[in-house]
Amino acid sequence: MERRNFLRWSALGTVASWLEPASLLARSSPPSRPEALARPLADPSRDAIYRYIDSNLGAHIERIQEYLRQPSISAENRGIQECAALTREYLAAAGCQEAEIVPTGGHPGVWGYYDAGAKKTLVIYWMYDVQPVNPEDWTTPPFDAQVVPDTRWGANGRIIRARGAINTKGPERAFLNAVESIRAVQGGLPVNLMFICEGEEEISSAHMPDLVARYRSRLATADGVLFPSCNQGPDGRADLELGNKGIVYVELETRGDERGGPKEFEIHSSLKAAVDSPVWRLVQALASLTDATGNQVKIAGIADPIRPPTAKEEEMMEALLKEVDEEAIKRLFKVDRWIGGADKREALRKLLFDTSVNIDGIWAGYTGPGSKTILPHKANAKLDFRLVPDQRAAYIIPLLRKHLDQHGFADVKINWSNGYDWSQTDPDSALVRAALDTYSDYEVHTMTWPRIAGSAPFYLFTRELGLPLVMFGLGHGSGAHSVDEYLVIEAQPPIKGLADIEKGYVDFLFRFAA
Amino acid sequence: MERRNFLRWSALGTVASWLEPASLLARSSPPSRPEALARPLADPSRDAIYRYIDSNLGAHIERIQEYLRQPSISAENRGIQECAALTREYLAAAGCQEAEIVPTGGHPGVWGYYDAGAKKTLVIYWMYDVQPVNPEDWTTPPFDAQVVPDTRWGANGRIIRARGAINTKGPERAFLNAVESIRAVQGGLPVNLMFICEGEEEISSAHMPDLVARYRSRLATADGVLFPSCNQGPDGRADLELGNKGIVYVELETRGDERGGPKEFEIHSSLKAAVDSPVWRLVQALASLTDATGNQVKIAGIADPIRPPTAKEEEMMEALLKEVDEEAIKRLFKVDRWIGGADKREALRKLLFDTSVNIDGIWAGYTGPGSKTILPHKANAKLDFRLVPDQRAAYIIPLLRKHLDQHGFADVKINWSNGYDWSQTDPDSALVRAALDTYSDYEVHTMTWPRIAGSAPFYLFTRELGLPLVMFGLGHGSGAHSVDEYLVIEAQPPIKGLADIEKGYVDFLFRFAA
Repeated sequence: MERRNFLRWSALGTVASWLEPASLLARSSPPSRPEALARPLADPSRDAIYRYIDSNLGAHIERIQEYLRQPSISAENRGIQECAALTREYLAAAGCQEAEIVPTGGHPGVWGYYDAGAKKTLVIYWMYDVQPVNPEDWTTPPFDAQVVPDTRWGANGRIIRARGAINTKGPERAFLNAVESIRAVQGGLPVNLMFICEGEEEISSAHMPDLVARYRSRLATADGVLFPSCNQGPDGRADLELGNKGIVYVELETRGDERGGPKEFEIHSSLKAAVDSPVWRLVQALASLTDATGNQVKIAGIADPIRPPTAKEEEMMEALLKEVDEEAIKRLFKVDRWIGGADKREALRKLLFDTSVNIDGIWAGYTGPGSKTILPHKANAKLDFRLVPDQRAAYIIPLLRKHLDQHGFADVKINWSNGYDWSQTDPDSALVRAALDTYSDYEVHTMTWPRIAGSAPFYLFTRELGLPLVMFGLGHGSGAHSVDEYLVIEAQPPIKGLADIEKGYVDFLFRFAA
Repeated sequence: MERRNFLRWSALGTVASWLEPASLLARSSPPSRPEALARPLADPSRDAIYRYIDSNLGAHIERIQEYLRQPSISAENRGIQECAALTREYLAAAGCQEAEIVPTGGHPGVWGYYDAGAKKTLVIYWMYDVQPVNPEDWTTPPFDAQVVPDTRWGANGRIIRARGAINTKGPERAFLNAVESIRAVQGGLPVNLMFICEGEEEISSAHMPDLVARYRSRLATADGVLFPSCNQGPDGRADLELGNKGIVYVELETRGDERGGPKEFEIHSSLKAAVDSPVWRLVQALASLTDATGNQVKIAGIADPIRPPTAKEEEMMEALLKEVDEEAIKRLFKVDRWIGGADKREALRKLLFDTSVNIDGIWAGYTGPGSKTILPHKANAKLDFRLVPDQRAAYIIPLLRKHLDQHGFADVKINWSNGYDWSQTDPDSALVRAALDTYSDYEVHTMTWPRIAGSAPFYLFTRELGLPLVMFGLGHGSGAHSVDEYLVIEAQPPIKGLADIEKGYVDFLFRFAA
């Protein structure tokens, strides 16, 4: 349900990946690089694949352009059917024995299966939809997918500028270029691939649970999930995120009813002397949920299931603390002080390991300029709860309802709610190892996050199917959900260009298969 | 600052005057009429004035039409200068030795003084501006001021339909017709008249204090203030209101600052785990102002100055209780239950004699459909406090500020505030007596309100100048601030037509002069 740009916004440090001026996050003296390693994969066939990629790079860029030139704006149902069909064609052309459009209650999914006869199977989570655009704000038309020079990335720097370039059709098509390159040289793949593609990621992934359920028995046989992405920030560092928080989103409402208050329309505010106010009731009910600071959740039982961080998670946090430039992050978000005056360690601990409840919006009555004297007949608020292991999304609304009822707020209605559980990937899984080792091969400094504070429905894979999941990829892009979205095609170190992005996927697949 | 229609809306019972279906408020068996009295004013000259009115009624209607045909929409600055000029001409033509346009910081005022060489002086509070119109919604154009048949008021019933017909150019011009009739027959008036006219009543009377201040020394010599109006409800009953509550309106704001929270823009809601929320802070600060019901104000000292009702006020309340149809009022406002389950007596007591604090509006963050996950950087609320004797408007903001500071909410800002004190007229004053006796002369049943729950800046006259003030007039109209506004010109009992409206003003002036 949560937009992916927010997911990335939400983590300290990961901001670097897609948002400028994220160079703010680079410390004044960059962290020391890992020792440059001899490429461990210097076998002849791998070199042949690399050469294939280098000599076909022009064609590979064209395939990315082709995909990006097909609009697929889910919110506007623009080009969705066409892009689903194109995605299916791509999977078939890449050698998938199964490649099919999957009708859902919304935009269609696409399923693909490549049987390599391999021991291991990798699931590719794929989104083919993109955000809407305001073309007049773009330097070049968002569906022209022009390749243009960009000296930010070196004297010969080039980018491809298009909606979807970084989020996420660019990285996905680059991954498929890598797959085709392996097949072109070797005639096969080191792993089996299951592609599960949705066209609703930007509009809340409403039918993703249905898609997963439909292929559940087959997906459950896999060994991990890759969400292709290009995760280098503008300073070259990459983030690897091992989990995300769960979320429950709820809309509350108070309204005059048989217990008091105006039932159908606002009335004159002087009547407050004798008439109950739904606005006061909502304010009082909300206030009962936290302490006076708004930071300590007071709903009985809500935090009980939270497990303490593991030793490994503590270790990752300590490593992150060395990387994170607290002052830069405060400047980025325009925040002077963490809650309760917390220091950097405590603030990061809360982001990684604590639950929270937030008021996303509240509204009632007159909100224009000046004064209007009314007693509104209704009031609303939107809240989101963030959940960490071992909280469960299914318990939040019952606990909230119980709290409201026990505190005398039975009149506060829950209009609707939705949400899902947290996701967690084992840091010691082969999938994570393959990602970290590949970053290391390419001398990309990596920050490993035990979890990000944001939410994404990856529990579908990690909790329901028990699969590890990583977002992985060399390369850099930005402008997701904004203007002039781009993916860097040609760059100088530490940013990797398209050839390295594709080689990185090749290496990742071989490492994972090993 | 408060619109006049709200003033009248705000009182139980007074709803009857201008709003339909206010006949809801009539009890199934109407209260017994006072004994029909022989007209006490049967002196020959009075009869001559009555005859003059009857024989000039056509011309009098035309003067009202003329005044109503001059648009004077203060909110749109439409016809304001022209209507001020016309008002000044009317006062000069009525014999005022002084009749002048008075520039203000906004729309001009008009001042008039008629020196009758009389012992007593009556101030006429006059508004020449009207509400905006949506002409397409009207049966006849709002500034045509057509006289049309209306059988609701009898077989020969007629109304004049126009913006301002009831609120308040119709009653005001009718009053001036009465004044001219007295002068035409007697050559003079029984009282001196001071006219103080504003063109901003519908947009908050911002410069009314300046106007009063300018003529303060002269106004202070007067004996009472009349606001001409036609106060019969559709059932013929009239209200007489002896006071109104004071009001303080305030806008609060929380915003991220050096103490915490995002300072410049909304940030991703997952950051709530480590970042303060201005929305939670506003909610907690508001919650501290009342008990959990939202009905008991918890600001220390705010209710201390409230004096108990006088014996006379208690007496008036008991009389009102016999008149008020509680169920009809609940139906009108769509309210099933008064605060705390109060009965009719307790509810009326609160409306008449208690202070209150109301949230007129609250807003922050995302208020559209579905979900958006943000931590807003600011939150706002608008509140109004209603004040009864002997609370003082000037003390409210300091008490509120002190409460917020002492409860740890120094971060809650008061963006702006305004307001004024309550108004109270002595029920035993000659002015009130003149009004009640005149209603009685015409067999109009009257409900006397010690105070209404709404607010109007009448303190300018009653508190600052020590003058009694009444809104008085026979006759009926409705549609103020709405469509098809009208004043009844010809009717059958118990509604009085224009001739009686004017005769009623004649009698009122003679009674007041006596």
